[in-house]
Amino acid sequence: MLKTFSYSSLGELELQQLLTRNTDPSNAIQESVLSILDDVQTNGDAALKGYAERFDGIRLESLCLTAHEIASLASTIGREQQRALEIAFANIHRFHETQLRKERPVETMPGVKCWREPRPIEKVGLYIPGGSAVLPSTLLMLGVPARIAGCKEIVVCSPPQAGGGINGYVAYCLQLLRIDNVYLVGGAQAIAAMAYGTKTVPKVDKIFGPGNQYVTKAKSLVQSLAQVSIDMPAGPSEVLVIADHTANPEYVAADLLAQAEHGADSQALLVSTDPRLIDEVQLALSAQLAKLPRAAVATKALANSYAILCNTLDEAIAFSNRYAPEHLIVETDEWEPLLRKISNAGSVFVGHLTPESAGDYASGTNHTLPTSGFARSYSGVSVDSFVKKITFQHITAEGLRHIGPTVEILAELEGLQAHKNAVSVRLD
Amino acid sequence: MLKTFSYSSLGELELQQLLTRNTDPSNAIQESVLSILDDVQTNGDAALKGYAERFDGIRLESLCLTAHEIASLASTIGREQQRALEIAFANIHRFHETQLRKERPVETMPGVKCWREPRPIEKVGLYIPGGSAVLPSTLLMLGVPARIAGCKEIVVCSPPQAGGGINGYVAYCLQLLRIDNVYLVGGAQAIAAMAYGTKTVPKVDKIFGPGNQYVTKAKSLVQSLAQVSIDMPAGPSEVLVIADHTANPEYVAADLLAQAEHGADSQALLVSTDPRLIDEVQLALSAQLAKLPRAAVATKALANSYAILCNTLDEAIAFSNRYAPEHLIVETDEWEPLLRKISNAGSVFVGHLTPESAGDYASGTNHTLPTSGFARSYSGVSVDSFVKKITFQHITAEGLRHIGPTVEILAELEGLQAHKNAVSVRLD
Repeated sequence: MLKTFSYSSLGELELQQLLTRNTDPSNAIQESVLSILDDVQTNGDAALKGYAERFDGIRLESLCLTAHEIASLASTIGREQQRALEIAFANIHRFHETQLRKERPVETMPGVKCWREPRPIEKVGLYIPGGSAVLPSTLLMLGVPARIAGCKEIVVCSPPQAGGGINGYVAYCLQLLRIDNVYLVGGAQAIAAMAYGTKTVPKVDKIFGPGNQYVTKAKSLVQSLAQVSIDMPAGPSEVLVIADHTANPEYVAADLLAQAEHGADSQALLVSTDPRLIDEVQLALSAQLAKLPRAAVATKALANSYAILCNTLDEAIAFSNRYAPEHLIVETDEWEPLLRKISNAGSVFVGHLTPESAGDYASGTNHTLPTSGFARSYSGVSVDSFVKKITFQHITAEGLRHIGPTVEILAELEGLQAHKNAVSVRLD
Repeated sequence: MLKTFSYSSLGELELQQLLTRNTDPSNAIQESVLSILDDVQTNGDAALKGYAERFDGIRLESLCLTAHEIASLASTIGREQQRALEIAFANIHRFHETQLRKERPVETMPGVKCWREPRPIEKVGLYIPGGSAVLPSTLLMLGVPARIAGCKEIVVCSPPQAGGGINGYVAYCLQLLRIDNVYLVGGAQAIAAMAYGTKTVPKVDKIFGPGNQYVTKAKSLVQSLAQVSIDMPAGPSEVLVIADHTANPEYVAADLLAQAEHGADSQALLVSTDPRLIDEVQLALSAQLAKLPRAAVATKALANSYAILCNTLDEAIAFSNRYAPEHLIVETDEWEPLLRKISNAGSVFVGHLTPESAGDYASGTNHTLPTSGFARSYSGVSVDSFVKKITFQHITAEGLRHIGPTVEILAELEGLQAHKNAVSVRLD
């Protein structure tokens, strides 16, 4: 099922090729997306209603669902599903609420006090894909930290479902988050609406959320065109499983397939020190695949994936660090000593009983994570993503006597006389 | 000197126009920059040497200065300047070292443990402009948090000076930071070199640093072309001074001019509750301007700036929040009650003796801050900019019994059977 490579026999060039994914920046759609952005900026709500008809097949009276309509849709879901969403909400909240921390001021010199204070990003936009994908979990993952941060306005856009509303599970999550409205807009046009603002859809300061290539391209473009910021660059989802002889091949296969079922362009890698485990996982993959509804998609993803045989777990970690996976699962008895060696990954799952799906839904960690090697430099979404940390400073007369001369000398050597004067005029 | 407007008589449209700056996305240079990026990606070092000759007028043997050569250049600066740079380094370090914080794990459910750990971004690139600008302060502002974060490799690029080296003050800062090499490359080609890597210049994961419009455009483009990330979008520097009748007009004028001397496109705004203060500041501006070496540049910047007369300090803060200034100076006796009302700003200076120049050089806070309204959603550079916060989770058998059913229900309602299986196979 999975092509297998031996780490020690991989040359640098071959290794680079294996590590490379999602580097086909298809500019084919750029023109279409630019035209949608322009249309929405110019024609506002009318453009949005036009796209709803054209792309979603729905003629909308109103672009906005009210709290009442949301409540109505939310009430259609089963009690068991309500309870599950509430538990996920509670766990995600419990983990994220520890991220908003007060920092103490620092007196860098006597009389020179510096400190940082967090402030929420005032208006944030959350894009929740619709269509064939039903993603209440994504709404929780973005909405919970936004609420903890204290964002004043949370704008949610999601494409209208057949019938003109939104999914009941998404509606229930809106209620849990106390978000009163949702805007029935999808695709690049939703990103445009939140970036520019229309009569109905508020303009936001930062846009979050996954989506298809049109959404992703639109998010990338609006950063310069509309002076709005975004959460992170997006790409196909990926998992890397490190497993040794202590791992259970059924568990490993299940974890690889959980990733593979996302899409044909997903990647699910197995990195092991045990050739027998790799063989057993291959068998388990075949058996489990046969029972999956999304077998066709998963098969394509597996064709796009591979296994690496390493000599040691340290080699496995080294490979993983180079790959910089979105999700890293470490299925070994001795996982603890490996932790400090992990340098690039979005979210890490350790031990034999920690499937990635637990994190995808309810462990508490966020599932909006960097892909395509961006885990080398990006963190997953957290409360940090929804705040600015503003620096403050206060200098007393004593402080200015201490720091003034230093600032004057540095301003002078940088040729900035007025910078120097701003100190000198106060010292006189 | 400054055009004055009355806040209460500004209509929404007029207000929007006043708040708008740096929105002329000049795509005129995009083709040139793309061609430089392509040249460096293809021709590596040869391209870089070509640009050094073409743009910097220097034929370079080597693109890299050694530690020995750096030490030599560093030894040319005066003891007073050395001491000033050491003090700035110490203050910036003292403030930034408190930003690397250990977070406690959270048990979101019994047996479900989640936590975050910071990891340094392994390779970072710092661009330090050269030419007419001498910016050792920028090297400290970027280098200190990079060192605190523990980045494994810090790549510094700066255009070669006449004579083929770098400025002695920059060299001294490299020594303070224990950075052994500097690459003699400037402009868009430096960004390209760090984004793609050449034989001499290492490829990095994230690029930091200010620069001219070519540098800024190159940073923006390499995010998608080279899968590298950058610190923040850049633009002309700006300050907003809130001052009431308790402010000293000489101080206020000095602060406005310290900003204005940066460049013709800088903005220096005065927001006051006292018309008499505004008049006095206008007089002080004229008098101080006459003595400035950079008077021509500052005059242009002032022509591009304005004063706003407000009825109350609350109105002033409201205007400031809408403008979202890079630097905010609050020159009022009663500044403390205003702090919690500040929601958008890069760095804030409070009280009468806290000039922005103190923060530009040595108070300890960072001077690499969001401009052009991006303070609505970006923080200034900090240690956070140089790390990733990786999430970890571990689930015990007990934990899986608690969380498993919830994950199974949610995976099922999202139509992701393999996600459900990854739990079920472990519960059986």
